[in-house]
Amino acid sequence: MGVLRNRFLSPRNLLVAALLTATADAFAQPPRGPQARSPQVHADGTITLEYLAPDAESVLLDGGQFGARDLPMEQDSNGIWRVTYGPIEPDIYPYAFKVDGVLVQDPANPHYFPNERFRGSLVDVPADTSLIHDLRDVPHGTVTYAYYPSVAGSTGRLLVYTPPGYDEEPDRRYPVYYLISGTTDTEETWYKAGRSNLILDNLIAEGRAEPMIVVMPYGNPAATVAEQRGEPKPDDPPRETEAAVARIDQFGEDLTENVIPYVDATYRTRPDRTSRAIGGFSRGGGQTLQTAFSHMDTFAWVCSYSAYLDTDLMESRFPDIAGKAAQTNDSLKLLWLSVGDEDFLYEDVREFMAYLDEHGVDYRKYISGGGHTWMNTKDYLARTAQLLFQ
Amino acid sequence: MGVLRNRFLSPRNLLVAALLTATADAFAQPPRGPQARSPQVHADGTITLEYLAPDAESVLLDGGQFGARDLPMEQDSNGIWRVTYGPIEPDIYPYAFKVDGVLVQDPANPHYFPNERFRGSLVDVPADTSLIHDLRDVPHGTVTYAYYPSVAGSTGRLLVYTPPGYDEEPDRRYPVYYLISGTTDTEETWYKAGRSNLILDNLIAEGRAEPMIVVMPYGNPAATVAEQRGEPKPDDPPRETEAAVARIDQFGEDLTENVIPYVDATYRTRPDRTSRAIGGFSRGGGQTLQTAFSHMDTFAWVCSYSAYLDTDLMESRFPDIAGKAAQTNDSLKLLWLSVGDEDFLYEDVREFMAYLDEHGVDYRKYISGGGHTWMNTKDYLARTAQLLFQ
Repeated sequence: MGVLRNRFLSPRNLLVAALLTATADAFAQPPRGPQARSPQVHADGTITLEYLAPDAESVLLDGGQFGARDLPMEQDSNGIWRVTYGPIEPDIYPYAFKVDGVLVQDPANPHYFPNERFRGSLVDVPADTSLIHDLRDVPHGTVTYAYYPSVAGSTGRLLVYTPPGYDEEPDRRYPVYYLISGTTDTEETWYKAGRSNLILDNLIAEGRAEPMIVVMPYGNPAATVAEQRGEPKPDDPPRETEAAVARIDQFGEDLTENVIPYVDATYRTRPDRTSRAIGGFSRGGGQTLQTAFSHMDTFAWVCSYSAYLDTDLMESRFPDIAGKAAQTNDSLKLLWLSVGDEDFLYEDVREFMAYLDEHGVDYRKYISGGGHTWMNTKDYLARTAQLLFQ
Repeated sequence: MGVLRNRFLSPRNLLVAALLTATADAFAQPPRGPQARSPQVHADGTITLEYLAPDAESVLLDGGQFGARDLPMEQDSNGIWRVTYGPIEPDIYPYAFKVDGVLVQDPANPHYFPNERFRGSLVDVPADTSLIHDLRDVPHGTVTYAYYPSVAGSTGRLLVYTPPGYDEEPDRRYPVYYLISGTTDTEETWYKAGRSNLILDNLIAEGRAEPMIVVMPYGNPAATVAEQRGEPKPDDPPRETEAAVARIDQFGEDLTENVIPYVDATYRTRPDRTSRAIGGFSRGGGQTLQTAFSHMDTFAWVCSYSAYLDTDLMESRFPDIAGKAAQTNDSLKLLWLSVGDEDFLYEDVREFMAYLDEHGVDYRKYISGGGHTWMNTKDYLARTAQLLFQ
């Protein structure tokens, strides 16, 4: 018979193969049944989210950061739960579903929020005019996942963004921005939720940022040590304040004694403090400030996003930062502090700013709207990347 | 007061920051309540899995690939559901929880299975003697996430493994293995579930594999085009066989006309067919065979893992492969076919093997135990990587 008969390529087998690939049979959905398409982002800025659950009793959309907190979804005759919401302000937002009270990622959406404790999906709502984190038709840098020798004999993980043209200019050397994410985030969060690579690609293409290398380390080396020793993961964050401070000191030790030497030996960096920046969000901002103030000879550019250090810690650990403000001002090319006026840390950050004002420490202040979110964090990166190494 | 008072670094704030980072308030767990530690892998090869759900009525472990299919878990007084299972054969396995019937990833485990339709977590059970996919204290290559100009004006995504020493030997050129994953897998699956980088690191360190570049493309460029145009994602797999064949032809076109030129222009490759291999698992194996047979001038090394082409497709599309077996045997340095004797495609693969036998087409056959799983897939990569470019 001339009829094309191709079992491997038959839809049934392809679907079965798809569903069995690396998963238990129980993961399989009914062959070629209805499929959820989610998220769907519409031209008017509304979004439609779908979740296939014929037997669920209730499915809610948990999209608090775009205003949809526990929004009921409706089930159609195919067992697909659906809701359309918005229009919402163009940006990238985390969301999840609450299925009979159980919080789940959107199974139809491969874009997830990298984190060690929760499983959020990401929806990208574009604007009429391209946003700074959009994938544009410009030269792209690359993001490399690498290992490095870390604390206590462990093997550390980090991501390294190299700018467009890095491979085409073999003699050129670049400044480096060390960029740290928040508690329970991973080394992937600044890349996959923060879009650090596309923000830099776009700013560099517009000539608004100096081509730079961006290094995104994992923020909790103690957990890497425990995992590689087969020991239980230590509390994150530690339960005692002193332990939390010591944990950040360990991170700073890893960054300055392990990460920076690895990066300087592996990439074409400008290995001097005026070509080295440190920044971070949330815990990463606290790590930024504590590490920078502990290593004033290492970093000349310091960016704290939605974070601060307590004034008592400043007095006990870093008395010269405020006590010798003229020296601090002369030493730092940039001290940036930004926070949203709805951030739960807003008052604390303002108190830290007041402490610096009181002692005459220069810093760049930016108060945005919004809260402790990665929508703000991407904006802070885009703003500070234009100041670094200028 | 000399007392260290540090609200930012206080456990409460660090935890709140952790839980609010980039997520809706609703994602938050009770501050400093009990926390699940999962997975826990014990020295005797048993594993303990935990899931925090004070209000759930039933939680099951869905770990079919290590034999735990819908295994009941027990809730403790803290609301943590727990089960210990095994010992199980050392390997990396996917699993999930069924919480009141809802399939969820393990929220306490950052190691996930990259896929477009399901959300599995991964548990790594080590052996007494190190396995070939283990992170060892050997020189490590890196994995780079890159964009390339793909079909229909879209921007494609791929991962590129470069071997240890790539940066230290700027004049050395390398052969390239193009490695494709399965239906609904992503370009990350060969890296994060397949451990392709560590398998190569370890084989190269032992002198058992030729240092090579491994390129891991996304297998469904039609979906990339749709996503970037804001159009609905096309059926994957397509519902008609002819459409499925055409989809694979589009992939082959993208690979040969876009991916390979990008890789040859960007990396220090040996850009000739005897230094170029193609391989893949499941749909990626079908893509491997169809693309290799359509471009015999491009690839000299061909590895199909748990896949086959239908003999009617061979006759209608590739009559010379079997019809001129001597020419095929002379042209291909390696044609590898492997499958597990419990694979749902086992009989189909055997039929394809019989077709090749019947016509005198040379190939390397490997029949393993097990099914259509990434445990087998990693083993097939480790075996074939020792044959390539030798």
